[in-house]
Parts: sequence; C-alpha cells; structure tokens
Amino acid sequence: MKHIHGGDIYADNWNEEPLDFSANINPLGMPDSVREAAQQAIAGCLHYPDPFCRALRRAIAARNAVTPQQVFCGNGAADVLYRLMLTLRPKKILLPAPTFAEYEEAAQLVGSEIVRVSLGEDLTITPAYWDAVTQDVDLVVLCNPNNPTGLLTPKGLVKKGMERCAEVGARLLVDECFHDFLCEPERSVLTDQLADNPHLILLRSFTKMYAMPGIRLGYCLSSDRQLVDRLYEAGAPWSVSGIAQACGIAAAQDTDFPRKTRAYVALQRAALQRGLEDLGLHVIDGQVNYLLFRNLCIPDLQRRLHDRGILIRSCANYHGLDDTWFRIAVRNETENFVLLHTLRQLKEESAWQR
Amino acid sequence: MKHIHGGDIYADNWNEEPLDFSANINPLGMPDSVREAAQQAIAGCLHYPDPFCRALRRAIAARNAVTPQQVFCGNGAADVLYRLMLTLRPKKILLPAPTFAEYEEAAQLVGSEIVRVSLGEDLTITPAYWDAVTQDVDLVVLCNPNNPTGLLTPKGLVKKGMERCAEVGARLLVDECFHDFLCEPERSVLTDQLADNPHLILLRSFTKMYAMPGIRLGYCLSSDRQLVDRLYEAGAPWSVSGIAQACGIAAAQDTDFPRKTRAYVALQRAALQRGLEDLGLHVIDGQVNYLLFRNLCIPDLQRRLHDRGILIRSCANYHGLDDTWFRIAVRNETENFVLLHTLRQLKEESAWQR
Repeated sequence: MKHIHGGDIYADNWNEEPLDFSANINPLGMPDSVREAAQQAIAGCLHYPDPFCRALRRAIAARNAVTPQQVFCGNGAADVLYRLMLTLRPKKILLPAPTFAEYEEAAQLVGSEIVRVSLGEDLTITPAYWDAVTQDVDLVVLCNPNNPTGLLTPKGLVKKGMERCAEVGARLLVDECFHDFLCEPERSVLTDQLADNPHLILLRSFTKMYAMPGIRLGYCLSSDRQLVDRLYEAGAPWSVSGIAQACGIAAAQDTDFPRKTRAYVALQRAALQRGLEDLGLHVIDGQVNYLLFRNLCIPDLQRRLHDRGILIRSCANYHGLDDTWFRIAVRNETENFVLLHTLRQLKEESAWQR
Repeated sequence: MKHIHGGDIYADNWNEEPLDFSANINPLGMPDSVREAAQQAIAGCLHYPDPFCRALRRAIAARNAVTPQQVFCGNGAADVLYRLMLTLRPKKILLPAPTFAEYEEAAQLVGSEIVRVSLGEDLTITPAYWDAVTQDVDLVVLCNPNNPTGLLTPKGLVKKGMERCAEVGARLLVDECFHDFLCEPERSVLTDQLADNPHLILLRSFTKMYAMPGIRLGYCLSSDRQLVDRLYEAGAPWSVSGIAQACGIAAAQDTDFPRKTRAYVALQRAALQRGLEDLGLHVIDGQVNYLLFRNLCIPDLQRRLHDRGILIRSCANYHGLDDTWFRIAVRNETENFVLLHTLRQLKEESAWQR
C-alpha cells in the first residue's frame, strides 16, 4: 500500500484540518449547483445507478459539442485511465518526464514497456517528443497542461503529434484534466479534432474545476465507437455512483462557475508566483491552478510546513525532477497569504540558524 | 454495451417510476443513519477521499470482529470482484451453475478457463461441487446464499469445501452479499474461519441490506495481508467516494436496521411465496430477500409485466436455467400485493384467450 499523490489529509491525525496545497482543487470550492445536485440525488440511491450513464453522457456531449456515443464516464479520471489500459493493452507506451505518475502505474497493470522522453530544459514539450513516436509505440500520452509543470503545449504542436501518431498507428491520449483552468481554454481545446481522428482520446475530469474529488467522476472522449463500448467490459458495472451522475449533469450545465474560476485563479496565481519569486524560489510559469517551483534555500521544507499544518507536494517521485522541486495548488487569497508568510518565516529561521 | 443484471430502470423512458422487482434491495429502503451520513459527507467531498478507507475499515472490522488489515473496500462488491480477478489471475476457476453472472464476466477480463458444475436437481450445492475441485483449479467461487436461488449452503458443507481447497492450494471466494438477510446469519457466518484460512476470501456488500446501490460500496475480508495490499494496485486509486466511506461507517454501526429487516423480510417472503404457489408457480424455497420461481402457465410473462410498469428478472441468461425461470425481490407488503394481483390478472387473461 503506497500513495504516490498529494491530498492524503487522512494519513495523520490532525486536530485541525491542514491547509492542503498538495491537491489541485478549485479554491472557490464546490459550486452550489453541484452541492444541491448531490443532496437531491441521495434519495434516488436506493436504486442502482444507470450502468451506462445515459443522461450524464447527454449533458457532457452538449457541453463539449460531441455526441453521447463519444463519451465514456468512469469513477474518476483514474478509473477511466485504468480501463483504457486494460482495453488497449499497449505493448509500448511513450510518456514525457516529468508527468502525472498514474499513467505509469496503470500501464504496469498490463505489463506495458514504458519509454520516457525528458522534457526540454524549460520543462516544455518540444517537437523532439513526437520524434520519439516510433513504429512500435502503441500509445502516446500527453498531459496538457502538463502536471506538475502547469505548462500548455500549443494546439499547433499537438496537431503535429496527432499526425505523427496517425502515421505509425499509435493512439494519442491527451489528458485535459486541468485544461478548463486555462485563461482561454477555447484556443487549445481538441474536441473539434475528435471526429476526424479516431486514434485521439481526450481524458477529462470534473474533480478539479468543480471541487468534487470526493464524489469521483471523470470521462473520456473518443470517436472510436468500438473503444467506448469496450471500456464498459474492462471493469465492474455501475462504476459511476448515482450521486456522481447527478453532480456531473449539474456541473456540465454550469458554465458560469468555470468562467468565474478562471478569472480568480489567474489573479491569485500571479500573486502567488510573485511571492514565491520574491523569496528567491525558481517558479515555472504555469498556466493553471498550481505552480511548480524549485527550492534551494529553505532546508527540510516539506516537513517543516507539515509541522505547521501545511501540506505541499514533493516532486521527488517524478521522473526528471528531484527533492528540490515542489508543486503547490493556487488556493484562495488568505490561504496563499498564510503559505507565503510561513515560507518567509522558515527562510528567516534557516538563515538565523546558519 | 450490454447489461446482464436487473435494476436498469433507466433503459426506458418511464412516466412514472416502475415497480422494480428485478433488483434485490431492502424493501424498508435506506435507513436514516445512512441517509444522514450521506448528507453530512457532501461538504467534505471537496477533498480527495481517503485512498485507504482507514476509518471505514476500522468500522467494518469492529462490526465483523476482524482486524482493519483484513478489510479491503471497493466501489461496490463488483469492483472488489474485478480487482480480485486482476490480482489472483486464476488460470482455472470453478463456478456453480446457476450462480451470479458477474464472476464469469470478471474472469473473462483475465482470460480464466471457466469450469461450471451444475447444481443438484433441487438447485442446492452438494458435496459433488467440492469433488470438482481438482489440482489445477486456482479459484473456487461459492455464492452463499446463492443468487438467484436464495438457498444457503450450510456451514458444515462450506467447511468441507474449505478443506478441499486448502488441500489443492486453491483460493475459496465465498460471496456473502445477501448473507445478512438470513434469519439467523450468525449460524453460518464464516468470519471465525478467516484467521486460520488465508486462502478464504469473503465478499460483502452494503448495497442490498442498506438499500444504497446508488452509493457504491462493497468489501472483502481475508487474512492474507499480501493479497489485501495487492488489491490496491489492481485498479485506480480513490475508488471509494467520500460519501460511500461515510455511509459505510454509519451502516457498519447500525445493527438495529438489519435485525428489523430480517423479521420484515421473512414475513413478506413467506406471504409472497404462498401467493406465487397459489398461482401454480413452482417456487424455490429461498432464505433471503428474493425468490426464484418457474413459470409454465403465464405466456410472455416478463414483457406483459413490463407493460404494466413492473420489472422482474428473467433468468434466461443464467447457465443451468432458461426463460421459464424468473427472480423477484421481496418488496414491501403493498408492492408484493400489486405484483400478485397483476400476476393473477395476467393468468386469467391468458386462460380467457385460449
């Protein structure tokens, strides 16, 4: 039993809930639309949930201008990812390094060979990534924006990769779980590419934008009808709870909340980034609701923050990073202030102890 | 995309909710304890759920007099079953026929060879089932009480099977998802056998007794610590939602509700069985909250009930049964009355049309 991600606030017995910067959840919290949908859905949970999420898939399709047949819903994006691996059973899979660790975990379940391509020095995806797509690669993964960097690969470059994958007959999985936090998501969204590219799969989540990670709901989009059908057979039935289906419908219909969120997060991210840089930390210019930074000046950073009730994500277990790198969520103004204030204190203490 | 179970009330556009006898849910509905736990858990869903269900496993352990380390929780018993298959990857698996269809579906995901042993003429498990446990069998499944028969295999006979499985080095998976509906569950419960039998796995569900199939929560018990640990790696993290964990804790602590349920179900089952037999139907003497019966007198039974807003479970897709067999849930007094009344009408209509 190991947990390789952030957000495990249950590992210690906290008297007071810790300030969790280790999970990238919308700082505005769960919208009323979703909370009310959850409350109203409880009574209906004495029935089995719809095994095919019919109403939810219609709502997601309407939101994304695709068809319900192109939507598969799962018990969180992680469940969708595992089902994709069990369905595609790729022999060889291409991953950038660093990127979200769960692709590799899921690939291990089906015994895939993993090829890692290091990102450029500025931690961006470069054309070199697509050069690594050789004939024997079955599945190429692109996390966009990437986790933990927060950097977006522009649509033009993604399209080059799509073409390359089509050439060699590889599937391209683009994980857009944080895409909705971009200031202008419509500029880089790939749903318009789905119909013509049956080898393209888009992975999405409701978890982060609608602050509902405890509800569990994710989905993928693909114009390969057979693939979508086979995903149902790659795991247990009824994987999406009745409450998750209701919350997903409410979330898909709530477009005001992401708009409000984008504006708020952009403002807070800029302030947080400035604050970290003022402390002498090297911050990657992330575009969404988290920031990756390198710390070479505050010793024993994670443990000392933990002692003060603040959780951050060490990036020591990301390929291509080490224990000097950390990822933090952009939270609300007050919480970000507390983090920066605490970091300043820790830095001063360290200077004083030398 | 196919759905092989009952309970899919979403397949048709009903103006009024149908009377669903096709899913075996507690006729008393969801207890207040569970409903309130769900309501209170919504706010906390802006955090990721505990990936290891620590508090829930403690509550389940206390209820069952086992240790938390012997408990693995999943997104419904079906999720636990699929993870067991992905972890054990049995080459050869022994199943009774008829039994719950999902064992076979899950086994197909890992390419197991399936050996089916027909039940005795009275549809009970006999010692012959254990005779079929040969050296090359890796996994033996016993659904107890069996679905769809509702018949219990007595503890003495199960223990014989446990010994046989130990001899050949096979795992024994006993699915006790309906066990709690028995009049005297303590007489046949197997938790006292766990410690001495690391090859024994008990599969359990909250779904049926606490009428929460829309919430998704199941678990298994095993004293094989390594197995429990490996189940976490056989699927996505965070598979149990925050709401399911809260509901499970409330359910595990609510022992009054099962007691009340057992008394009510026993009474209603007896009345329903008498009613069916009065109609000339052959009813298997089930011990829990559903009844299996054979219909040779009412033509086109399932469709005609469906036209009247009543769903029952055809057993045509169970190995060893055919389209003359049906399973119905024991529901509340009024609902059972409506079913029996409708069946009488259908029978009279059929007689009249001849």
